[in-house]
Amino acid sequence: MSGTDRTIEVGVLGATGMVGQQFIALLEGHPWFDLVWLGASERSAGRPYGEAASWKLSSPVPDAVRDRRVDPSAPGKAPQLVFSALDASVAGEIEQAFAAAGHTVVSNSRNHRMDPTVPLLVPEVNADHLGLLSHQASQRSWTGAIVTNPNCSTVVMTMVLAPLRAFDLQQVIVVTEQAVSGAGYPGVPSMDILGNVVPYIGGEEAKMETESRKILGELRDGAVTPHEVIVSAQTTRVPVVDGHTEMLSIRLGDDPEPEALVEALARYTGRPQELGLPSAPARPIVPLREPDRPQPRLDAHRDRGMAVTVGRVRRCPVLGHKLVALGHNTVRGAAGGAILNAELMVAEGLVT
Amino acid sequence: MSGTDRTIEVGVLGATGMVGQQFIALLEGHPWFDLVWLGASERSAGRPYGEAASWKLSSPVPDAVRDRRVDPSAPGKAPQLVFSALDASVAGEIEQAFAAAGHTVVSNSRNHRMDPTVPLLVPEVNADHLGLLSHQASQRSWTGAIVTNPNCSTVVMTMVLAPLRAFDLQQVIVVTEQAVSGAGYPGVPSMDILGNVVPYIGGEEAKMETESRKILGELRDGAVTPHEVIVSAQTTRVPVVDGHTEMLSIRLGDDPEPEALVEALARYTGRPQELGLPSAPARPIVPLREPDRPQPRLDAHRDRGMAVTVGRVRRCPVLGHKLVALGHNTVRGAAGGAILNAELMVAEGLVT
Amino acid sequence: MSGTDRTIEVGVLGATGMVGQQFIALLEGHPWFDLVWLGASERSAGRPYGEAASWKLSSPVPDAVRDRRVDPSAPGKAPQLVFSALDASVAGEIEQAFAAAGHTVVSNSRNHRMDPTVPLLVPEVNADHLGLLSHQASQRSWTGAIVTNPNCSTVVMTMVLAPLRAFDLQQVIVVTEQAVSGAGYPGVPSMDILGNVVPYIGGEEAKMETESRKILGELRDGAVTPHEVIVSAQTTRVPVVDGHTEMLSIRLGDDPEPEALVEALARYTGRPQELGLPSAPARPIVPLREPDRPQPRLDAHRDRGMAVTVGRVRRCPVLGHKLVALGHNTVRGAAGGAILNAELMVAEGLVT
Amino acid sequence: MSGTDRTIEVGVLGATGMVGQQFIALLEGHPWFDLVWLGASERSAGRPYGEAASWKLSSPVPDAVRDRRVDPSAPGKAPQLVFSALDASVAGEIEQAFAAAGHTVVSNSRNHRMDPTVPLLVPEVNADHLGLLSHQASQRSWTGAIVTNPNCSTVVMTMVLAPLRAFDLQQVIVVTEQAVSGAGYPGVPSMDILGNVVPYIGGEEAKMETESRKILGELRDGAVTPHEVIVSAQTTRVPVVDGHTEMLSIRLGDDPEPEALVEALARYTGRPQELGLPSAPARPIVPLREPDRPQPRLDAHRDRGMAVTVGRVRRCPVLGHKLVALGHNTVRGAAGGAILNAELMVAEGLVT
Repeated sequence: MSGTDRTIEVGVLGATGMVGQQFIALLEGHPWFDLVWLGASERSAGRPYGEAASWKLSSPVPDAVRDRRVDPSAPGKAPQLVFSALDASVAGEIEQAFAAAGHTVVSNSRNHRMDPTVPLLVPEVNADHLGLLSHQASQRSWTGAIVTNPNCSTVVMTMVLAPLRAFDLQQVIVVTEQAVSGAGYPGVPSMDILGNVVPYIGGEEAKMETESRKILGELRDGAVTPHEVIVSAQTTRVPVVDGHTEMLSIRLGDDPEPEALVEALARYTGRPQELGLPSAPARPIVPLREPDRPQPRLDAHRDRGMAVTVGRVRRCPVLGHKLVALGHNTVRGAAGGAILNAELMVAEGLVT
Repeated sequence: MSGTDRTIEVGVLGATGMVGQQFIALLEGHPWFDLVWLGASERSAGRPYGEAASWKLSSPVPDAVRDRRVDPSAPGKAPQLVFSALDASVAGEIEQAFAAAGHTVVSNSRNHRMDPTVPLLVPEVNADHLGLLSHQASQRSWTGAIVTNPNCSTVVMTMVLAPLRAFDLQQVIVVTEQAVSGAGYPGVPSMDILGNVVPYIGGEEAKMETESRKILGELRDGAVTPHEVIVSAQTTRVPVVDGHTEMLSIRLGDDPEPEALVEALARYTGRPQELGLPSAPARPIVPLREPDRPQPRLDAHRDRGMAVTVGRVRRCPVLGHKLVALGHNTVRGAAGGAILNAELMVAEGLVT
Repeated sequence: MSGTDRTIEVGVLGATGMVGQQFIALLEGHPWFDLVWLGASERSAGRPYGEAASWKLSSPVPDAVRDRRVDPSAPGKAPQLVFSALDASVAGEIEQAFAAAGHTVVSNSRNHRMDPTVPLLVPEVNADHLGLLSHQASQRSWTGAIVTNPNCSTVVMTMVLAPLRAFDLQQVIVVTEQAVSGAGYPGVPSMDILGNVVPYIGGEEAKMETESRKILGELRDGAVTPHEVIVSAQTTRVPVVDGHTEMLSIRLGDDPEPEALVEALARYTGRPQELGLPSAPARPIVPLREPDRPQPRLDAHRDRGMAVTVGRVRRCPVLGHKLVALGHNTVRGAAGGAILNAELMVAEGLVT
Repeated sequence: MSGTDRTIEVGVLGATGMVGQQFIALLEGHPWFDLVWLGASERSAGRPYGEAASWKLSSPVPDAVRDRRVDPSAPGKAPQLVFSALDASVAGEIEQAFAAAGHTVVSNSRNHRMDPTVPLLVPEVNADHLGLLSHQASQRSWTGAIVTNPNCSTVVMTMVLAPLRAFDLQQVIVVTEQAVSGAGYPGVPSMDILGNVVPYIGGEEAKMETESRKILGELRDGAVTPHEVIVSAQTTRVPVVDGHTEMLSIRLGDDPEPEALVEALARYTGRPQELGLPSAPARPIVPLREPDRPQPRLDAHRDRGMAVTVGRVRRCPVLGHKLVALGHNTVRGAAGGAILNAELMVAEGLVT
């Protein structure tokens, strides 16, 4: 698709949650996609979206969405392309039902991420993993397809690690300081996080340690061979609304000067930039030179929340190099990432 | 001193700042020490303390202190034992002047910490480093003495690392999430930290990396041989008032089960516990079993802020082990630590 | 009771919630009361308290309580005197069942506050309203009794208004800035309150407007005649953990100088001070002279959280006078207030 | 000017501060104004803006501004139209020097607001007060002019009060909960506001009480007759980054139903809307129907921060009516308001 000759109708599954809201906000005025359908739980179905959702974004509910009735989360009236922001407790079955019914499901949920036939995409990093879809079609009884994006903290990390594969990436120790919006709504109780830190997020560390290897891996003979990097994650929650900050120590087989890493990060681009996708940031990774950056309040919104910022690239006396990375968890790390996945699929002729 | 037969008069240098305030709060009702003197800058000198200080603790200014006149930061009227909470920009000269005039200066400032003849004490860890004082006396023209406690984030870390020396401690990667009280007053602007994270604290990482080796080192032949552990620190500021949280990955030469580490941490004690010092926590390190602890709001005040809490002791796929540690930065990590140093010196007969 | 010759066994209903936790913390080491029984929902019953409760206070769970098994919320094994921190959705029936079974229920719940035979106590203000209990006994079939304390924001306000009745108190406009601990746990979602203000707390304004008139009213002929003051409240939630701040504008029939109000507030005392009750603050109302006080972080804990602090007493060009008041919402405004009620009843011979 | 035929060069005085930064962000891409000059203190003069300013907005420094050299705050190279974000300690003299040198100074500073010949503008409310400028010209020796916008919390309040003049506006009691960005940078120390409330902002209450009467007043015979409304303000600081929330109780001579007030607020418009000024919000006042709104995080950015949102319009038992209002303090309450003033002057032919 040249991208401009016509619009494609899309729907959002799990439209009332935090990530569903971010999908709606990002799809407003999208040049390719026309949001025509909203799916949510039985409790919300039949109600106008403006009533069914407890809207928590600082931009208002788009007028076109406010009065639209929410449908149940079942195929039928939904358009061919649907984004899924479903909760993991229900996403597995519902997404499969949509794929079986011929829909292309571009999902933010974790349920199918590690499925060997499901692409786990960060479009700048592994656009070629879309090649898995032909195997998905042959191994599953679906006439549609499922494509996923990674866990929010994993996206930020893998974007930074991708260009470092060229230096023989071997080991990573990462500590995250994650925003509360990643936990949905009502999510984190204020009594737990006001003036406090919670050094634990259930399941998050395992996701960072395993998803990253698939994302950074190579597609060979119809399967992804995971990258050999070993990741050790400690994930913590901090009183920040949007933006995950990550402190990485990295062991590379090569021994580049820190400045060489900065340059590799700064010039890194991928298919979204080649194809000029609407949601693609001009530069996926933006190194900042100030010693005290990146910071979530100042940098998470960079390039409409789609760029990852990096700072403090320097020597680590233990593993060799260390740095700080930051990304917008509900945009780049969730809804924006999924929309970029869908744009990639359109541009590659996989959605028509 | 048996500790109970009489009280010792003490003073506080830098009494109006955040750490000075914490000294005053902790000395109220102290069984051995009687606070009789307050020193501060020329700007404050001559004014009643209640006016000169912008008191920021949640306990009120002690009545006995409120009306006491502040003196300039010069020896003369000060008692023999003085605690120093002076800013590093002035602490060097003033503390030396007091030592030269015969005072024992128990300092929280960084200026003399790395001086080879100055003990850098965490009393549970290296009480024997007080042995440096005889060399200090012979090499310096002071009739008094200077003793220091480490940087706040270093105290928390070294208390946890001390018992791990038994397992052949080799490398540590630590990421800190530090409270704003550590930066004094006015300190961190609210525009920088409300709903935000600042991944940089000037000079802090170098302190953690160098002070720790001295603290964990051995006193031999009148000098401290630094421990060989290599520490790599990334220090960040988070919107927390009190309590530094630290995420550690640790390489040990031995390969103990995580449970063996927990046990070693739990049973660790030192001279303060042997001597029953008034400010000594019953257990210096308290392992917590809940998966989401320690947390600063819930755990920083443990044992009047003098205990370090630890949690999530587990395997690290890169360095072998990882865990979370937490301590109260202005109590254990500053004023409380210094008071414990002074108690130790009294009990060991070094202050009379 | 002279208060010291023996201890009285007590229980806590709703022991696992935020106010229940505060009851437990405040009863630890209480000179008169011995906590021997914990009641909670069916879900918690049978489990050790340490497991059943998600403890959120910065002091640890008392050891004696951690392993105690929680009972269901039914009379039977409970001691004669029980504190109730039950949720309003269940407090009505359960508290009546306990009263019917002969227990004295000292409740923090709202269900019986406006019952004409139930005392709604702020002991410094209306200790004589305990006189309602003889009517309660004659009009209800209970062999026990129910006594209540007011809504947390109402306590703070009525303590300040009580001494102003002497100046012909007529009208009050109050705006509150309330802490999240008042909403229990999980309570306020962090997405709603981090870096934000919520200008609405369901039901709170009506409570302040109606409970205050009963509290400030007069007991005559076996009934409380409400005070004629008209209160208009706007209640808001702010990102504070503990401490409700209240901005009041007040119309008095008299026209005292602001300094006369300060003096009246400062010298106000009541029965708890006369009787020397263990939880009574030395001065129930503490005027502060600094222009920027009271502040929750600095002043809410005054006198173990039992004193109300007041500042900025000055002229209001519309109603005549204005001021700022502050109190600890889960101590003075909830558990601590209820314990003071029970101490008053013991001292007056109503509990034996 | 039709507004589109050419651009007007503008400068910003006090360009490095918080409000100066907001001017720069809002002027980027402005259809009429071309930012060509930046003035700041001697300390910053000569340095590129990107170095001189500690940029604190979540949008990055515009590229065109980053490398521009900062000039001293003196007329000379500055264009005819300059916006002033100068600190009040220096604004008085500098703004007069610019006016004397022929510049039109559109100021956000407080120094000249109450000058009888200086318009204190909220363009929707009192655009006709620009008529003062002919008197300013005759009474002052300036060949240029000074126009001001009000204090940030006053703007929000007067926009809401303006349409209520039709109901015989008589008295207002207002309590504010103000964001920290209003205090500049470094501004409020984090130790003062994290998890806290400060019930005092120096000088703020007097500004709200006096500026409002001038703004709502009538221009007659070359002078503004202040409106007779009596305002009583209590201003507090809360841990919010952007957005001032205000709780108002209002006495009107008439007794409209609350719904009539909502309608009057909703349909209120002024000269900016008539003239279609670029920064004019479609509706200056947006009533929200949800019971818990407006909230700063969700509503301050409404219509690019230029609309004031209002909620909870209801009866007040003391003064008759009450409501909650919210506005963006550094946009509508400062830089955005000043830019709207300049647009008005251009459209009215007062700047060419």
